[in-house]
Amino acid sequence: MNRTVLLTGFEPFNKETVNPAWEAVRSLAGHEGEGYRVEVRQLPCVFGVAGEVLRAAIGEVKPAVVIAVGQAGGRVDLSVERIAINIDDAPIPDNAQCQLVDKPVVEGGPAAYFSTLPIKAIVARLREAGLPASVSQSAGTFVCNHVFYSLMHQMAGGDVRAGFIHIPYLPQQAAAHPGAPSMALAEVVRGLTIALEAALATGDDIRVAGGAVD
Amino acid sequence: MNRTVLLTGFEPFNKETVNPAWEAVRSLAGHEGEGYRVEVRQLPCVFGVAGEVLRAAIGEVKPAVVIAVGQAGGRVDLSVERIAINIDDAPIPDNAQCQLVDKPVVEGGPAAYFSTLPIKAIVARLREAGLPASVSQSAGTFVCNHVFYSLMHQMAGGDVRAGFIHIPYLPQQAAAHPGAPSMALAEVVRGLTIALEAALATGDDIRVAGGAVD
Amino acid sequence: MNRTVLLTGFEPFNKETVNPAWEAVRSLAGHEGEGYRVEVRQLPCVFGVAGEVLRAAIGEVKPAVVIAVGQAGGRVDLSVERIAINIDDAPIPDNAQCQLVDKPVVEGGPAAYFSTLPIKAIVARLREAGLPASVSQSAGTFVCNHVFYSLMHQMAGGDVRAGFIHIPYLPQQAAAHPGAPSMALAEVVRGLTIALEAALATGDDIRVAGGAVD
Amino acid sequence: MNRTVLLTGFEPFNKETVNPAWEAVRSLAGHEGEGYRVEVRQLPCVFGVAGEVLRAAIGEVKPAVVIAVGQAGGRVDLSVERIAINIDDAPIPDNAQCQLVDKPVVEGGPAAYFSTLPIKAIVARLREAGLPASVSQSAGTFVCNHVFYSLMHQMAGGDVRAGFIHIPYLPQQAAAHPGAPSMALAEVVRGLTIALEAALATGDDIRVAGGAVD
Repeated sequence: MNRTVLLTGFEPFNKETVNPAWEAVRSLAGHEGEGYRVEVRQLPCVFGVAGEVLRAAIGEVKPAVVIAVGQAGGRVDLSVERIAINIDDAPIPDNAQCQLVDKPVVEGGPAAYFSTLPIKAIVARLREAGLPASVSQSAGTFVCNHVFYSLMHQMAGGDVRAGFIHIPYLPQQAAAHPGAPSMALAEVVRGLTIALEAALATGDDIRVAGGAVD
Repeated sequence: MNRTVLLTGFEPFNKETVNPAWEAVRSLAGHEGEGYRVEVRQLPCVFGVAGEVLRAAIGEVKPAVVIAVGQAGGRVDLSVERIAINIDDAPIPDNAQCQLVDKPVVEGGPAAYFSTLPIKAIVARLREAGLPASVSQSAGTFVCNHVFYSLMHQMAGGDVRAGFIHIPYLPQQAAAHPGAPSMALAEVVRGLTIALEAALATGDDIRVAGGAVD
Repeated sequence: MNRTVLLTGFEPFNKETVNPAWEAVRSLAGHEGEGYRVEVRQLPCVFGVAGEVLRAAIGEVKPAVVIAVGQAGGRVDLSVERIAINIDDAPIPDNAQCQLVDKPVVEGGPAAYFSTLPIKAIVARLREAGLPASVSQSAGTFVCNHVFYSLMHQMAGGDVRAGFIHIPYLPQQAAAHPGAPSMALAEVVRGLTIALEAALATGDDIRVAGGAVD
Repeated sequence: MNRTVLLTGFEPFNKETVNPAWEAVRSLAGHEGEGYRVEVRQLPCVFGVAGEVLRAAIGEVKPAVVIAVGQAGGRVDLSVERIAINIDDAPIPDNAQCQLVDKPVVEGGPAAYFSTLPIKAIVARLREAGLPASVSQSAGTFVCNHVFYSLMHQMAGGDVRAGFIHIPYLPQQAAAHPGAPSMALAEVVRGLTIALEAALATGDDIRVAGGAVD
């Protein structure tokens, strides 16, 4: 029996007309690999609502693995997030023009959740496949972290592997942001496929350094 | 009766011969301001031991505020850390030649603790005083984060305000690291004084944006 | 009658096993477009010899346009160089283990030559095509600048358009240099094609800002 | 007989209310060291006029050394410029609201002039003194480069040493530009003093690497 992998990507935000996360994720809709099938959902870039849409999708899809994907304009690589924190502190308004400051994602929730993806194994496989990748120690405090925290809170205590991957701008976006790095869509799609297969195939994560001095 | 503020700085690490955190902190030893007095301690850059030395100092000093200070080579400003996470993942060995990978700081501890310093008020006051400052969403996963987490774990549930501030290289260090930013010692000392006085003077933290998109 | 475009790329250097410039350039060998044909040559990453190989190629090919292409590890986009300067000042040894310091490329030559490519039109077309691109004010002082200066010195006073484009690491290279940006080979090849066609099609360059404050 | 060193700094530009170059330079007005005396002038941040003011100052002061100093917001260190290029290509308007694009600084002038300061010796002395410093391969294409080129054109063929040094934001400026590095005024002043004394004391420049790969 095939396992289902749920991938989510956001709608465009912050004046962009495209979101590379959604472009990559939707190109994997219905994709079938060895022993798995991919379901995809688009999330609104809106505090609160994004988490609810995700919750509904999880209830419907009953995934074995969930990877939420988000745009990180300015980053250079596939950034596998380590930890989601219980704070909304938005430097810009979300798509509903709401700019939360220092509100918990979940009132009374724990300060943070660690990703349950095998983040070190994913980074190792991505690099072996010739794709720039790293562990990231912060997913920020905007809607990406909000969804990541909501996801981990929903999955807490269960055995569904879940986590978040940030990706760079597409080249076409970077063309309008001189100085910003980018990654081609095909590379991102290839990377997400490697990541989800690593999540399915890995038992305990490998033990290799992936931290930061500061 | 004067309240005591405990400031800590690390010994040099990673081939440096000086640690700007300790240089700044020790210059404030015995400093007295309105209603407070500063005690300082040097911490070894060693997993585990650093937290024990800090614990002993807290027991001895009985501070009203604790600010641990650490060098962040490559950063540009006074970075007021928001959150300490329960992981040791060292990209380099510590000063006892130990390189922990993916070990919890405190076995069974919560995933993270938020700083109980008024981080937004501190950043606002620093900027008003003409000093570059920002809220940081990650203190890394090396001995700085280790001490920060240990500190917050020790203080959990009490009413002692505690937190961590990362500071740039000194100019003399940056002279040996072409491309690295720096901050003059006098500016750092001035900044720490502003930070600790803000911690003493502020009730609830102010509500202004200080987050990151990703 | 078809015009010939000469593209050059370097052999790998600085411990890399691949040079993205040569990978991109060689994939265009023999490429024919409307009214032009591409010839390619690999250049050694060696002061002096690189210029001689280029001179011989120009004598043989009799190109209408020459674009030398080089790897710029750490850059984010297709960097169209504005100016070549008459200095060799190598931060690392070349592939013949020679590390020239403050020697002129051409004894008695002028201090610099401006590119005769329509650099602003090239950048504009690249961005329109969704590729990150910018004008660069410095090609460095290593073998890339050396070849660029040699090229412009050889072409001085003639009507052959010539210049230099720096390109980022390939993703596979960046996978081994955490933190480094990259560009997919297909994007680079598409970009070079756009650049050479712009060089053939443009008369006077367009007049749009492409400078730097400092 | 004392030799005169002419230092220039610009008025504020680009919405700043202070220019660190002028702040540093003016604090050295009338400074006397062993065998020299400093004269200072403020230059308008205006294409054309800046060069004329500089020319008049040189005629009046008859300096042995001229160092023009300019703000480089975003740079981390004392950047000793290697070369001035014959192009005005302004990404922002100057203080007379003029935004030149691809105009030569001097019609018919050479493409570039190398600094005649001992740039390597200056960088070496600055680093020995614990100040972050580097050789820069580009002074940009705005009014700083314009003045630098004008200066070298005026001095061409003579024996007056002349050049340009870019400096970072002051801390108070960086406080308003989160993410920007800075340098304390006292460090900049100390650095300029070291630089001008190196210019007076050095014969042929030292031969050490100070270039860039790209």
